[in-house]
Amino acid sequence: MLKPLGDRVILEVAQEEEKTVGGIVLASAAKEKPQNGTVIAVGEGRVLDNGTKVPAEVKEGDTVMFEKYSGTEVKFDGKEYLIVSGKDIIAIVE
Amino acid sequence: MLKPLGDRVILEVAQEEEKTVGGIVLASAAKEKPQNGTVIAVGEGRVLDNGTKVPAEVKEGDTVMFEKYSGTEVKFDGKEYLIVSGKDIIAIVE
Amino acid sequence: MLKPLGDRVILEVAQEEEKTVGGIVLASAAKEKPQNGTVIAVGEGRVLDNGTKVPAEVKEGDTVMFEKYSGTEVKFDGKEYLIVSGKDIIAIVE
Amino acid sequence: MLKPLGDRVILEVAQEEEKTVGGIVLASAAKEKPQNGTVIAVGEGRVLDNGTKVPAEVKEGDTVMFEKYSGTEVKFDGKEYLIVSGKDIIAIVE
Amino acid sequence: MLKPLGDRVILEVAQEEEKTVGGIVLASAAKEKPQNGTVIAVGEGRVLDNGTKVPAEVKEGDTVMFEKYSGTEVKFDGKEYLIVSGKDIIAIVE
Amino acid sequence: MLKPLGDRVILEVAQEEEKTVGGIVLASAAKEKPQNGTVIAVGEGRVLDNGTKVPAEVKEGDTVMFEKYSGTEVKFDGKEYLIVSGKDIIAIVE
Amino acid sequence: MLKPLGDRVILEVAQEEEKTVGGIVLASAAKEKPQNGTVIAVGEGRVLDNGTKVPAEVKEGDTVMFEKYSGTEVKFDGKEYLIVSGKDIIAIVE
Repeated sequence: MLKPLGDRVILEVAQEEEKTVGGIVLASAAKEKPQNGTVIAVGEGRVLDNGTKVPAEVKEGDTVMFEKYSGTEVKFDGKEYLIVSGKDIIAIVE
Repeated sequence: MLKPLGDRVILEVAQEEEKTVGGIVLASAAKEKPQNGTVIAVGEGRVLDNGTKVPAEVKEGDTVMFEKYSGTEVKFDGKEYLIVSGKDIIAIVE
Repeated sequence: MLKPLGDRVILEVAQEEEKTVGGIVLASAAKEKPQNGTVIAVGEGRVLDNGTKVPAEVKEGDTVMFEKYSGTEVKFDGKEYLIVSGKDIIAIVE
Repeated sequence: MLKPLGDRVILEVAQEEEKTVGGIVLASAAKEKPQNGTVIAVGEGRVLDNGTKVPAEVKEGDTVMFEKYSGTEVKFDGKEYLIVSGKDIIAIVE
Repeated sequence: MLKPLGDRVILEVAQEEEKTVGGIVLASAAKEKPQNGTVIAVGEGRVLDNGTKVPAEVKEGDTVMFEKYSGTEVKFDGKEYLIVSGKDIIAIVE
Repeated sequence: MLKPLGDRVILEVAQEEEKTVGGIVLASAAKEKPQNGTVIAVGEGRVLDNGTKVPAEVKEGDTVMFEKYSGTEVKFDGKEYLIVSGKDIIAIVE
Repeated sequence: MLKPLGDRVILEVAQEEEKTVGGIVLASAAKEKPQNGTVIAVGEGRVLDNGTKVPAEVKEGDTVMFEKYSGTEVKFDGKEYLIVSGKDIIAIVE
């Protein structure tokens, strides 16, 4: 099991197809869209300057939208995850 | 339904026509203007360093002006929305 | 009516003539001067880290000087306004 | 009358001669020196994060040294003034 | 023995093979992955603005993932260690 | 007399010879060294976010080392002084 | 004697040989390593925003590792010292 630290959240990311020509990613006509993922684990939260912890606004099992290109990819037990800071999660899909 | 996190606000944006020549957006003669939108959902607010939450100054149904190019476009149930930080909302149109 | 958010202030700006040659704005020999405007509406103020609000030092009807090029132009009911942050207002003309 | 906002201070600046050749300001051999001025008006001070105001360390009539090139020039009633932030005032000449 | 200061943590790093051609490190097709290591020693923590210390979320013996290229390599008693800031540790492998 | 403001300190600086060739300052082989000076006057100190003042750690008459190239040169009563921020004073020579 | 100010620490630095070819410092194959030194004197510490002082985590006589290229070299009584900020000291060698 992976335990994320601070305000980090571990996500399993929904794959999306990228249209490429000859290996070059084609810029979409539209503005960059965020990606979706499922929350696998949640850190204890960030510590404020007065010493209290602010828990994440998401919980295990939530489907969330997060800023594309944010976070760090990790591989664990043969599966790919993304660990993002809570501040890069935009919305919960309910 | 989409639930925005932190101080984020979900907007349905009023479309504007852009004058282009051959696909190139023409710079307007005037300074860049903000855009209008309608508030669809409001996050719980940003957390201050002393731990209290500051709620947004806008509420569902408000028509607002926001800084052009701010925020992240999302697609949900076949519709386009814009999720902006509360600090990028300039004014409420009353 | 437009209600500015945060520490924003809505101004009606005094126009100034710009000397141009062939559409190119001529740099003045002197340092850049601020512009004048009249306060039309005032936001609720900025929120300090301890949660209290600091109201603006200006009020409706004040004539003020503000940093040139600050703020965002908005058009409302066919009139042009400028919405500036309170920190970009330099002085009240009394 | 002009009322400066925040920690701003209005100065009447002592003129200095600049040696130029053909309109180009000549760099002095020495390091850049500050300029002198007389305090005309003082803002209410800057607001700390705990909500209290810190008044300026200068008062009307003080002769002060300030960092060259700091502040904004304003013209009022046909006279030139300089409005500088209190933090750009280096010393009082007593 | 080495005693790390502040929020620093001393790690023994798991080596990874890098594929190179002629001495040039080849960029992987995937996004940069974090590295693994074992916690050898933990600093007393970082000091908040209110004077309290925040201890690290890791302890001696933990296997952790940390941001690649973070930290400072040190050599002590003939062995290589990496000293990283606690904020660069992403997750504990449990 | 000159009264420095904030955390500023007025110094009388010990002169050092600079080796130049044809007016061009020669870079020393070694790392840049700080300079010495004598404290002439001390400001009231810097104001913390909680409103209290932190007095300087130096007093009139102290011989101090300060970061080279820090501060602002001033001329007063025909003499040259340097006004530096207290944070640019490295050590007291006792 | 030299008394360091704020969170500064005076070190006597262990010399290391640098391999050069024709006066050009050769980049080592490995990542930049920190250097070692002995603590000669310790400042009173840094002042937090709430006014309390945080003493350094090192004391006179400690052998420490510090970030290479940090600090300011000073010469005193014919000897070379390095004055570094406490935050650039990585670890105590015990």
